[in-house]
Amino acid sequence: MASNSNRGVVYLKPGHVEVQKIDFPTFRNPAGKTIDHGVILKVVTTNICGSDQHMVRGRTTAPAGMVLGHEITGEVIEKGRDVEYLDIGDLVSVPFNVACGRCRTCREGDTGVCLHVNSDRAGGAYGYVDMGGWIGGQADYVMVPYADFNLLKFPDKAHAMEKIRDLTCLSDILPTGFHGAVTAKVGVGSTVYVAGAGPVGLAAAASARILGAATVLIGDMNQERLAHARKVGFEPIDLTRHDRLGELVADVLGVPEVDCAIDCVGFEAKAQGADGKAVEAPAVVLNSLMEITRAAGAIGIPGLYVTDDPGAQEQAARHGNLSLRLGLGWQAILWDRLPIAEIVNVKVIGLEQAPAGYKNFDAGVANKFVIDPHGQLSKAA
Amino acid sequence: MASNSNRGVVYLKPGHVEVQKIDFPTFRNPAGKTIDHGVILKVVTTNICGSDQHMVRGRTTAPAGMVLGHEITGEVIEKGRDVEYLDIGDLVSVPFNVACGRCRTCREGDTGVCLHVNSDRAGGAYGYVDMGGWIGGQADYVMVPYADFNLLKFPDKAHAMEKIRDLTCLSDILPTGFHGAVTAKVGVGSTVYVAGAGPVGLAAAASARILGAATVLIGDMNQERLAHARKVGFEPIDLTRHDRLGELVADVLGVPEVDCAIDCVGFEAKAQGADGKAVEAPAVVLNSLMEITRAAGAIGIPGLYVTDDPGAQEQAARHGNLSLRLGLGWQAILWDRLPIAEIVNVKVIGLEQAPAGYKNFDAGVANKFVIDPHGQLSKAA
Amino acid sequence: MASNSNRGVVYLKPGHVEVQKIDFPTFRNPAGKTIDHGVILKVVTTNICGSDQHMVRGRTTAPAGMVLGHEITGEVIEKGRDVEYLDIGDLVSVPFNVACGRCRTCREGDTGVCLHVNSDRAGGAYGYVDMGGWIGGQADYVMVPYADFNLLKFPDKAHAMEKIRDLTCLSDILPTGFHGAVTAKVGVGSTVYVAGAGPVGLAAAASARILGAATVLIGDMNQERLAHARKVGFEPIDLTRHDRLGELVADVLGVPEVDCAIDCVGFEAKAQGADGKAVEAPAVVLNSLMEITRAAGAIGIPGLYVTDDPGAQEQAARHGNLSLRLGLGWQAILWDRLPIAEIVNVKVIGLEQAPAGYKNFDAGVANKFVIDPHGQLSKAA
Amino acid sequence: MASNSNRGVVYLKPGHVEVQKIDFPTFRNPAGKTIDHGVILKVVTTNICGSDQHMVRGRTTAPAGMVLGHEITGEVIEKGRDVEYLDIGDLVSVPFNVACGRCRTCREGDTGVCLHVNSDRAGGAYGYVDMGGWIGGQADYVMVPYADFNLLKFPDKAHAMEKIRDLTCLSDILPTGFHGAVTAKVGVGSTVYVAGAGPVGLAAAASARILGAATVLIGDMNQERLAHARKVGFEPIDLTRHDRLGELVADVLGVPEVDCAIDCVGFEAKAQGADGKAVEAPAVVLNSLMEITRAAGAIGIPGLYVTDDPGAQEQAARHGNLSLRLGLGWQAILWDRLPIAEIVNVKVIGLEQAPAGYKNFDAGVANKFVIDPHGQLSKAA
Repeated sequence: MASNSNRGVVYLKPGHVEVQKIDFPTFRNPAGKTIDHGVILKVVTTNICGSDQHMVRGRTTAPAGMVLGHEITGEVIEKGRDVEYLDIGDLVSVPFNVACGRCRTCREGDTGVCLHVNSDRAGGAYGYVDMGGWIGGQADYVMVPYADFNLLKFPDKAHAMEKIRDLTCLSDILPTGFHGAVTAKVGVGSTVYVAGAGPVGLAAAASARILGAATVLIGDMNQERLAHARKVGFEPIDLTRHDRLGELVADVLGVPEVDCAIDCVGFEAKAQGADGKAVEAPAVVLNSLMEITRAAGAIGIPGLYVTDDPGAQEQAARHGNLSLRLGLGWQAILWDRLPIAEIVNVKVIGLEQAPAGYKNFDAGVANKFVIDPHGQLSKAA
Repeated sequence: MASNSNRGVVYLKPGHVEVQKIDFPTFRNPAGKTIDHGVILKVVTTNICGSDQHMVRGRTTAPAGMVLGHEITGEVIEKGRDVEYLDIGDLVSVPFNVACGRCRTCREGDTGVCLHVNSDRAGGAYGYVDMGGWIGGQADYVMVPYADFNLLKFPDKAHAMEKIRDLTCLSDILPTGFHGAVTAKVGVGSTVYVAGAGPVGLAAAASARILGAATVLIGDMNQERLAHARKVGFEPIDLTRHDRLGELVADVLGVPEVDCAIDCVGFEAKAQGADGKAVEAPAVVLNSLMEITRAAGAIGIPGLYVTDDPGAQEQAARHGNLSLRLGLGWQAILWDRLPIAEIVNVKVIGLEQAPAGYKNFDAGVANKFVIDPHGQLSKAA
Repeated sequence: MASNSNRGVVYLKPGHVEVQKIDFPTFRNPAGKTIDHGVILKVVTTNICGSDQHMVRGRTTAPAGMVLGHEITGEVIEKGRDVEYLDIGDLVSVPFNVACGRCRTCREGDTGVCLHVNSDRAGGAYGYVDMGGWIGGQADYVMVPYADFNLLKFPDKAHAMEKIRDLTCLSDILPTGFHGAVTAKVGVGSTVYVAGAGPVGLAAAASARILGAATVLIGDMNQERLAHARKVGFEPIDLTRHDRLGELVADVLGVPEVDCAIDCVGFEAKAQGADGKAVEAPAVVLNSLMEITRAAGAIGIPGLYVTDDPGAQEQAARHGNLSLRLGLGWQAILWDRLPIAEIVNVKVIGLEQAPAGYKNFDAGVANKFVIDPHGQLSKAA
Repeated sequence: MASNSNRGVVYLKPGHVEVQKIDFPTFRNPAGKTIDHGVILKVVTTNICGSDQHMVRGRTTAPAGMVLGHEITGEVIEKGRDVEYLDIGDLVSVPFNVACGRCRTCREGDTGVCLHVNSDRAGGAYGYVDMGGWIGGQADYVMVPYADFNLLKFPDKAHAMEKIRDLTCLSDILPTGFHGAVTAKVGVGSTVYVAGAGPVGLAAAASARILGAATVLIGDMNQERLAHARKVGFEPIDLTRHDRLGELVADVLGVPEVDCAIDCVGFEAKAQGADGKAVEAPAVVLNSLMEITRAAGAIGIPGLYVTDDPGAQEQAARHGNLSLRLGLGWQAILWDRLPIAEIVNVKVIGLEQAPAGYKNFDAGVANKFVIDPHGQLSKAA
């Protein structure tokens, strides 16, 4: 493919996305201003996220024509003249949040609510409604601003390509699950319950394990997902058995409570029931978690809570965890401590298969879909 | 053995300990005052610690006749009338530090410098010079004051007896190693170097692993200890090869630095050289750790630093870590996440074998000696 | 008064309390078991709290006949045989929460959810519905269990009696306000908005100031309270002017946002409006605070959130802050850094005036009522 | 003065500095590479620091010809093309540390050990030996790289100029003192002892006060400095009276210990004695602080520890505290909570008076010297 053509996954209307030709990226920000700090990436992998699903389901004000995708790993092919520490050819992980690295909140580490990358409110993202208008990365090529600040370079490119199915999870899902585990105060010896066995729940469970959890229970109603959770070493809790969660927990632990609970259902509301009352599910989940969390225990909430209204405000700040991204997640993956691709059950697809991936993910299959626009992974494998 | 007889490991003079008949414990504190908050334990296991060795080597003012032992696990056989939450028959872990749970420092969590259990200065311990005069636990029976506060009860006694070789490590060595790893800021994905492959070093390495370290290097000059370290999954660094630690680290990691370093040589000074200049070894170790720790990295120092003077002040506060003990270490062991006995290479001996244990430990064998005064472990096994 | 007689403020029915003769305290816990760890206090001061008002207003299931009062300062007149570090005559501050100091949560510092002092659920309190049945301290005498653990002894009794109007605030209101300021992450240079100028709001504002706030705004609709807030050095925000809080904030700060916001309206719901829709007020307040708190800023919520139902669960854990109590609040008061009595506008009344105090407090007067059962303060003044 | 001329304070040899003509700044880094992220400042104020003195005293390898000065406040007069959030005319505070804001340590908040601004080791600074070769700011004009990241813009320039004597302290001395107080764990109600009544000691004392200290003692042997300390509200401890520090502390506090101690003598070694044995003073100070700090208390060490060797490695990381700088110190000063100029006794001098300022500071006068190169402060006053 010539480097001046480009394709992207475009949102058309509720329930419909399509792969279309899109403009090749330029060094301009959404306001049209030329910038010196950006790079253009050839996308190596880009994942479909539960929050993409929210938009595609029509529950937001996402406009028709928006290019989706905020989970991106890529190779630098062009760079602006103030990019000092990245070179052409570098393999890099892109964080969900666009951040300037120069405002007060970024300098204090709160990159999720950067003050400069969104003219409407704090916080920006790629391919996301109301998050500043940055073009999404489910594409062949994408532009990343403030590249020296935002990007994580993998020091050993060949080694990184061997682990690319794991490393692609560093762009969003692993930090998001990790953030949930950290806010639930998971530590050495903790007993943990994760609500929801979708990709975010599995990433939270994997995070809890590497944080030292004694054991991790994971509850869902989807039998395929429960079977996968068991296969990768967690204790599945089948919520279709009955609705007394404490008893189900006690069957495993001997006591009806855990030290830490993590709510990962927000993203996967359908898992809670086929009756369509998804809107009320979150409160049910949270209440059940309060019942099973011990006195002085903590609950982490990476799940995305939205109302029924299309214009509901998303909570971008819940994505990601800066500290995990800065080399340490990479190191854990490199040394085989975090087999996250196996745990979230990564399935690699081509860009043209993205619409089918959205549909299958929406149907609840036990996979995390990773798009490989240039066919580099299949060649690598 | 009748419950009113008792034996203990007694310090006689530098280089000599002996098992002697000693008084059966009473509910009196070292000042002779009757107390209501104590329990008498039948000792199930009690370990030999590197800091016991310091005393036995004659490097402190420990008086002849002192009963040694501050790493104790036991069964409650008598209790004072203000002991409300322990019962006869309970299996409990005793922390190294004697603490009242009632003074300002205890209430703020700094139990290592309790203000009430030592009339000379802050901080108390069992069987330890200048730590308040509490009788040691390398014995058949021992009294523990402020029992409701100090003791950790294992909820499932039968299960605990199955794991007793691991659980005995909760009384001191595991929390001490854990404290070293935590102060070195080990987290998910950290690369870690541990100086010293003795029991404390191995416990620190095990702690680093469960805290999420990407990989743990462990340096020593003792080939037996290095071989054991490799066997239990760490990267051995043979310090006899040459003295450029950065290069040895780079051989494993590709870079001559780590995120976190832990100095566990204090306890095991002999490992540093056969020339007897153990006194100067600690500075050498610390300096080498500063060289290999990355900018903004951290160094943890659980090792015991003493001067050559017999009266040197020990640093009791460095032992232990309250939070690990309160159930969570137990849970991690229960769920097979922390095979600490295998890692520190526990060797169980009878009380009468304690003097030989001291000698062998002093000679640098790759074992953690656990005394089983009543022969309960050999029966259990 | 003879030391074997006793009087207490008793809840009769919604809107009614009465001073009645009550039993002299004994060393028995609510289950009737004799205890060794308690002391009997001659009450020096005991304050009326907003959460007492909730019960008196009939919004809980508090039973008729319950003796009220959980803000207590007193003098030790008897002690159990396992009380080691308090003596007859000691002047002590009692924390709101009854805690054993021996369970896991207490040992980890979470005394608000002690596992041993309430047979129904975690957490105990004096004179409080569903909090374990401990007899309240709006009385001449009261029994405090686990005295060595719970009580803060003032080291210099004469000096403490000089500052008693301030020190009485250490039992609940000051730690509660402080906790709100800390959870709102108030630090050096923060701009702070406090919702509610009642005693808790003023205590939060005083806490924010000593934590280094650049300036503290405090909003209310009660003109008397606003005038008092201004008098003690805060920036009053008159919420009757209009309902665009951002604009009112911008009038003072130049920008429509603050670094930190503290919701102290829960306790003082009537302050929000005379229309009786107090139930909905909390959400209005919280939403307004979210609007004026800057990106990455924080909101502290010491206010008590209850539903309309008499049986609503109170959130005892929100009371108090252990670390402030342990000597440090005393020291700040001693050195005239925290003139908390002046700030919350303490008004001292006799025990027989307690019913009138409840009524006046309910009417919204700008005072914190402190009961002086034995007339010691009037003598001292 | 024409904007293409420039003057700076130049180090000549031990004991000698001189104001010389120097080159006007350019947008090149010390390696000669053109950069897009810098600004050129017209210097409004630039202070003389104790660590400048170390170099001028000849105790380092600082080369002759080096332009000094790392405490800088200035006005933007030119900007590079990738400076997005600063404009010509903005009044800004420059931090001591040069930092890129793009490397791992900067992104994790450890700007004092930036990996990109010094080719020899981690960490850079202006006008400082072995800190990367950035030209100092005791000059008419200076270039600041990575300006969007490094600079703190004062939002209200006129207001800032009114407070400029205070705000100039934000560039180093106030954050350094604050860092000392924070590492000593000063909090609400703490009793604090500060060793050394020079500018850093006074800044630490001011920081302790706004952090909520109950009372702050400050020890020195220089009577002029002690008199000044008393005048600005601290408790002076005259170390010439005798050398039993505990007794001197007890005279004020009633007990011979404090909660927190801060060692600010490093910078001011001469205060420790007239016998010239300044090299040994630091250990004496630290040991005395260990004696008077309560069990579980903490010691903060902002003082600069160097050996006698001219090439001794400075510890740049000890300077500064990022979080204080980002707006909050400014806010505290704006609202008159931190009268730091009065506390450190700022004395404003012209650039040509800098050599005299160095001499007077070296002689121990109770002043912090602030250079006003363009005479803007005298005009403003």
